[in-house]
Amino acid sequence: MTPLTTLLGIRHPLLLAPMAGVSGGRLAAATSRAGGLGFVGAGYGDRDWLASQLSATEGQRIGVGFITWSLRRQPELLDMALAFAPTAILLSFGDMGGFADQVRRAGVTLIAQVQMVKQAREAAAAGADVIVAQGGEAGGHGGLRGTMALVPAVVDAVAPLPVVAAGGIADGRGIAAALMLGAQGVLCGTAFYACDESLAHPEAKRRLVAASGDNTFKSPLFDQLRGLDWPEGPWGLRALRNALSEQLGARWAAEPQAQHAELATQQTRLAHAREAGDFDTAPVIAGEAADLVHATSPASAVVQALMQGCDTALGRAAAITNRFQTPQRN
Amino acid sequence: MTPLTTLLGIRHPLLLAPMAGVSGGRLAAATSRAGGLGFVGAGYGDRDWLASQLSATEGQRIGVGFITWSLRRQPELLDMALAFAPTAILLSFGDMGGFADQVRRAGVTLIAQVQMVKQAREAAAAGADVIVAQGGEAGGHGGLRGTMALVPAVVDAVAPLPVVAAGGIADGRGIAAALMLGAQGVLCGTAFYACDESLAHPEAKRRLVAASGDNTFKSPLFDQLRGLDWPEGPWGLRALRNALSEQLGARWAAEPQAQHAELATQQTRLAHAREAGDFDTAPVIAGEAADLVHATSPASAVVQALMQGCDTALGRAAAITNRFQTPQRN
Repeated sequence: MTPLTTLLGIRHPLLLAPMAGVSGGRLAAATSRAGGLGFVGAGYGDRDWLASQLSATEGQRIGVGFITWSLRRQPELLDMALAFAPTAILLSFGDMGGFADQVRRAGVTLIAQVQMVKQAREAAAAGADVIVAQGGEAGGHGGLRGTMALVPAVVDAVAPLPVVAAGGIADGRGIAAALMLGAQGVLCGTAFYACDESLAHPEAKRRLVAASGDNTFKSPLFDQLRGLDWPEGPWGLRALRNALSEQLGARWAAEPQAQHAELATQQTRLAHAREAGDFDTAPVIAGEAADLVHATSPASAVVQALMQGCDTALGRAAAITNRFQTPQRN
Repeated sequence: MTPLTTLLGIRHPLLLAPMAGVSGGRLAAATSRAGGLGFVGAGYGDRDWLASQLSATEGQRIGVGFITWSLRRQPELLDMALAFAPTAILLSFGDMGGFADQVRRAGVTLIAQVQMVKQAREAAAAGADVIVAQGGEAGGHGGLRGTMALVPAVVDAVAPLPVVAAGGIADGRGIAAALMLGAQGVLCGTAFYACDESLAHPEAKRRLVAASGDNTFKSPLFDQLRGLDWPEGPWGLRALRNALSEQLGARWAAEPQAQHAELATQQTRLAHAREAGDFDTAPVIAGEAADLVHATSPASAVVQALMQGCDTALGRAAAITNRFQTPQRN
């Protein structure tokens, strides 16, 4: 056990990312049942959807993740989540403000996800119990810094607070690497996107399994096309490239006025495509770790594979240490 | 020993990045003497400078690193480097073409640095002996993918070729993490930038030591200001933000025509600033791992600290494995 697993009361140091529209009650519950901690993604604040997903968590201990700037528009959703007595609340993307105190007054563990070292210091000062250092490899919204250099810098900046690594981790090698960087656990989204219990469309799961991280990109394009008014900030949306993003990305770069003229039409087209499962048009919102996801499977199998892979990687460490032992100075 | 250390004949799986204008003969030699492998950075092809730096390597085994598209303009520089009988030639940024065969015919180890999985497959097919998977955290030129997800994907793509991780690694925790990801070694630039033997300006070293990776950015701005005509490609320049980049970045984004009108003047200003050591104007070209560099010191001390830190991190792995052991299924 580490302080993180003790704090959260979990067996494996493995958290499910609260992916909007993907991490529902069943996926969160399945992750927790397998020994990690599942998070329901509250996304952009559909009250009925959130209530329905929370009621589908099958009595498992789970957390709820919010997009902070969106929560500020409907702060009552935090009351609703806290009334559910979650194991933790995760806040990301924006100043936590009074939400931090509200979560702590409720006796619920407060996890702050950050994308820069200076944000980690601010979140620690605001009272976060756990810091998630999220690298820009992550699918969906994330920052511009990479996981490899961000995690140890955040560990140093907020010690002794426990740090969880996120972004680009979808197999046991990545978990072992995160632990070497000083993280006490990991938060994974893309690794669980194609799970049986995920709410992603079957065709989106199929495309993720077939994809390479080479084929992801970070851009405001799909937020504009979904009509999401993300505020200015050090974050962007990572998704798989598709026919629409290639076509519009090129044309709108060459003819900026075309974007203004076409936006409403393209938004309607995208909304229909999402319903129809047309992912040449609708986005598959996944991260660079897509290379490491090879199949759809139950969440329990993903948790087991991740932790066995981590054990295998860590088990190699002792042999490696002996190989590269630094010579003693005399 | 791993296949990589055996192949290169080195004690530590630690390579010095061939930083243009920074990794000269003395720094390369000091890195090799300490048990790693130093690389002289041939940069943009100053023949006399390269000859002078190669002659300053004090009889140590070293490698030479080229920017492939630049080498194509002066291919005779590869003849010159091979005549020096280097331990390895590292090629990055562009199609290796006939250079690959030339290096191999000379009996010299060919190391290809790539920024995407598909480039790794191409480099392996072209005959590279070692692949460096370079994440975008790296200082100077690098790709858009992050080290954490890129390295294991490249390891899988080119197995059994040895893979070296680069980008965002500047302490022992990062080396241990890279080994967990399946890399057989690391290539570090920012970690050595502030070394006594580095050719960087003392004021640039001071700024790097004081900087956070939060304050780096990736942009073509400083290439334009240095008059370097990098071809279109999946790479960009990472450097510390400074007064000039903040000022011009904002103005040229708001008034694109200003860039055209001012470029020549600003290029002259920057050239003078580099000579004068004015780094409010000239760039400090360093990576996101800046948070992890806390002092200037001899390269030998950096190598020792990196490898001792790696041993310490790997030494924790056995204890962690026992903590998170996956329960046996009955």
